[in-house]
Amino acid sequence: MKKLLVTFWILPILCFSQMTDEEQLEQIYKTALTESKAYEWLDHLSNQIGGRLSGSLNAERAVAYTKAEMEKLALDRVYLQPVMVPKWTRGIAEYAFIESEPGLTTPVNICALGGSVATPAGGLKTELIEVQGLDELAALGKEKIEGRIVFYNRPMQADVINTFEAYGGCVDQRYSGAAEAAKYGAVGVIVRSMNLRIDDLPHTGSMSYGELPINKRIPAAAISTKHADILSTMLELNPKIKFHFRQTCKVYPDVLSYNVIGEIKGSEFPNEIITIGGHLDSWDLGDGSHDDGAGCVQSMEVLHLLKKTGYTPKRTIRVVMFMNEENGLRGGNKYAEVAKAKGENHVFALESDSGGFTPRGFSFDCSDENFEKITAWKPLFEPYLIHYFKKGGSGADIGPLKGDGIVLAGLRPDSQRYFDHHHAANDTFEHVNKRELELGAATMTALVYLIDKYGTILPKKIKG
Amino acid sequence: MKKLLVTFWILPILCFSQMTDEEQLEQIYKTALTESKAYEWLDHLSNQIGGRLSGSLNAERAVAYTKAEMEKLALDRVYLQPVMVPKWTRGIAEYAFIESEPGLTTPVNICALGGSVATPAGGLKTELIEVQGLDELAALGKEKIEGRIVFYNRPMQADVINTFEAYGGCVDQRYSGAAEAAKYGAVGVIVRSMNLRIDDLPHTGSMSYGELPINKRIPAAAISTKHADILSTMLELNPKIKFHFRQTCKVYPDVLSYNVIGEIKGSEFPNEIITIGGHLDSWDLGDGSHDDGAGCVQSMEVLHLLKKTGYTPKRTIRVVMFMNEENGLRGGNKYAEVAKAKGENHVFALESDSGGFTPRGFSFDCSDENFEKITAWKPLFEPYLIHYFKKGGSGADIGPLKGDGIVLAGLRPDSQRYFDHHHAANDTFEHVNKRELELGAATMTALVYLIDKYGTILPKKIKG
Repeated sequence: MKKLLVTFWILPILCFSQMTDEEQLEQIYKTALTESKAYEWLDHLSNQIGGRLSGSLNAERAVAYTKAEMEKLALDRVYLQPVMVPKWTRGIAEYAFIESEPGLTTPVNICALGGSVATPAGGLKTELIEVQGLDELAALGKEKIEGRIVFYNRPMQADVINTFEAYGGCVDQRYSGAAEAAKYGAVGVIVRSMNLRIDDLPHTGSMSYGELPINKRIPAAAISTKHADILSTMLELNPKIKFHFRQTCKVYPDVLSYNVIGEIKGSEFPNEIITIGGHLDSWDLGDGSHDDGAGCVQSMEVLHLLKKTGYTPKRTIRVVMFMNEENGLRGGNKYAEVAKAKGENHVFALESDSGGFTPRGFSFDCSDENFEKITAWKPLFEPYLIHYFKKGGSGADIGPLKGDGIVLAGLRPDSQRYFDHHHAANDTFEHVNKRELELGAATMTALVYLIDKYGTILPKKIKG
Repeated sequence: MKKLLVTFWILPILCFSQMTDEEQLEQIYKTALTESKAYEWLDHLSNQIGGRLSGSLNAERAVAYTKAEMEKLALDRVYLQPVMVPKWTRGIAEYAFIESEPGLTTPVNICALGGSVATPAGGLKTELIEVQGLDELAALGKEKIEGRIVFYNRPMQADVINTFEAYGGCVDQRYSGAAEAAKYGAVGVIVRSMNLRIDDLPHTGSMSYGELPINKRIPAAAISTKHADILSTMLELNPKIKFHFRQTCKVYPDVLSYNVIGEIKGSEFPNEIITIGGHLDSWDLGDGSHDDGAGCVQSMEVLHLLKKTGYTPKRTIRVVMFMNEENGLRGGNKYAEVAKAKGENHVFALESDSGGFTPRGFSFDCSDENFEKITAWKPLFEPYLIHYFKKGGSGADIGPLKGDGIVLAGLRPDSQRYFDHHHAANDTFEHVNKRELELGAATMTALVYLIDKYGTILPKKIKG
């Protein structure tokens, strides 16, 4: 009885000493803007390591670096999760020019698409046919296409507010363009870069040959938007002009790599797992600062901020640096496969893979009742100008975790500048603003704190 | 009777053919993102003209250029409003170094504050005293300050979300620092740049000697944040180090300049005036792209978008490129003075002078009933991710219009990057994103459209 009395007496004091949610969020944002490690981490990833394509030496250096940095955070566990990843190399710099007539050439900027085969050693030179997309390709048919290079030139739609939506409306040309064109006898593919600006930079990205046998595969490259416009104009003036391009890219057998995982064990519900992540691999042309160095360091920063603000999570918080989002998603698939095999109960997963720009909010892939519960927290985010809470996609790497009960979410930063840099040589550190990066990390931490504190609504079968 | 019948029969058709507000806003944003002239105008202002300090040749070239461009828009009237402006020149590039001991110097980056006097011809060299602000200065008093250079080093507060608020918490050092320090016998003033980043760029800005007689005025300069930190560290190690700086700036007599005004006459209420503007002058170090080339071209774009989307304003819409916001506000004061003298009825004024970044919304200086009326339009802006409608300041140039009944508003873009560029050599064209600029113009146009269509709530004495 005496023990019970003491407990009753202490309890209100403990509760009283706890911060309100408003105070906790204030503490999180304040700490992020004054004591964050995110920018320093990104500086290292971008400037000391650089582009980190799966299977490259840099990717392995990034694995070692982020593991070592997470170990400094005094987490409960930091470990590597092995995963086999594809290895593709660009080779020496590509070149291309338009030949208006023999001897009269205009150089243009291209880059091989990730996964593409090389051209013949001396390059590929032939006439082109311009199309606005896969439908037009099919309509033209074999007669018009055979022996030619197909030039996909449908631009991103400028009057869409969310640039990711405009990207979604174009990317089929890049991803499936070569596989489809090869079916009609095309010998190569040139794709307008997925970029809303008119500039000189070619933007790479993944492509797939689908079921196409190896001997049917044709080389594919992206061309800068400015040169796509020039090429289109020149084709209009003279459909007989030739395009000459050379690339020496190569596919190797899969190699071993890793997801890097750091974890704080939950104090009350250790079996309820919250996963936060970005992808550690990046394209090779820039240093991968926005895509997705930013998401990686923001995810690590969530753990740092929870520690710094003295919050003890009730649930297990796990940060994952996923490997190979760009050209295979092997890391995301492996993580979900292992989680399933172990029977882990993932209640929430959050990905940051839309750039390190000013955060605007989140999109959620979850049940209506969970969405309603989370949306009720919106007023807490109001002082930080976070307004966007919508249903929608989450992130590629956490997608494979999808299942009953789990809430998937994606951080949604301002999207206007993202495709100026996406997969191009100017995805570099100086284009990330320190405060914007930190505000993103704080916004993620605030949501993780609320989810951890109040939990998600679990489906009945799990509840029971 | 027959005539009446015809009228009744036609009226519903006319109404039916009108677009809903949703459709009108969609049209405005779509047109802004595909047919805007704003970016092209800014390119000219920034790259063909450049920094446009009041009284400079460039300022007059900007007057001529924007007048000519507005004339191309087929408005009802385009004219110049004469205004006398101050003329201050920077002279040859400033230099400064820290002298740790005779012969051992560290060069640092400074720039004269706008309005400052020059140093003696060979520069000024003496010991410094570092203070965190005007209060500390007063506390130290004449004994500690006399004969020295005062080094104001209070940084912008990083953990404030709205960077303009952080700026407001610091700028007294720059504006009044010299006048106050001179009272205690200081011989010069060095002010930490108003910049949240640690970098190499000094940021200029206006300062005032208040009532100080000419012979008491002391030279004042800004130092880059990186060098402010270095200077502070060196002072801590050795308070006897000397600071040497030289600047050759000069104040000239006032010269004639102009506000540039373009107007569409209202079709129903021509005497109700809506004024939209930015300021045409800029500091001389960069090309004034964000401050405030962006606001100027966005304001002009409002007229362009209204014309392009075929909207006929009921009220008179006037765009004003104000002259001399940076170091005198003469243009804003002149405009209000003339408006008052003519008995003009200004119902609404909107300024864009917070950079050309992604628009987040508006702040309003108006009656509660007008604020309530305007806030009811928020859902119309939701598809464009415009969420911020708050009471607050509007803009310096439109401030003098303040009075009964008028609604004053300021466009509020994302503020995180603004002070990286503000008044510094990197306020340049390449830091303005075309889409962000256009979205700002569209957001302004949408609000102007709604205000024009539905009017503001006029105070009783005007109504009556």
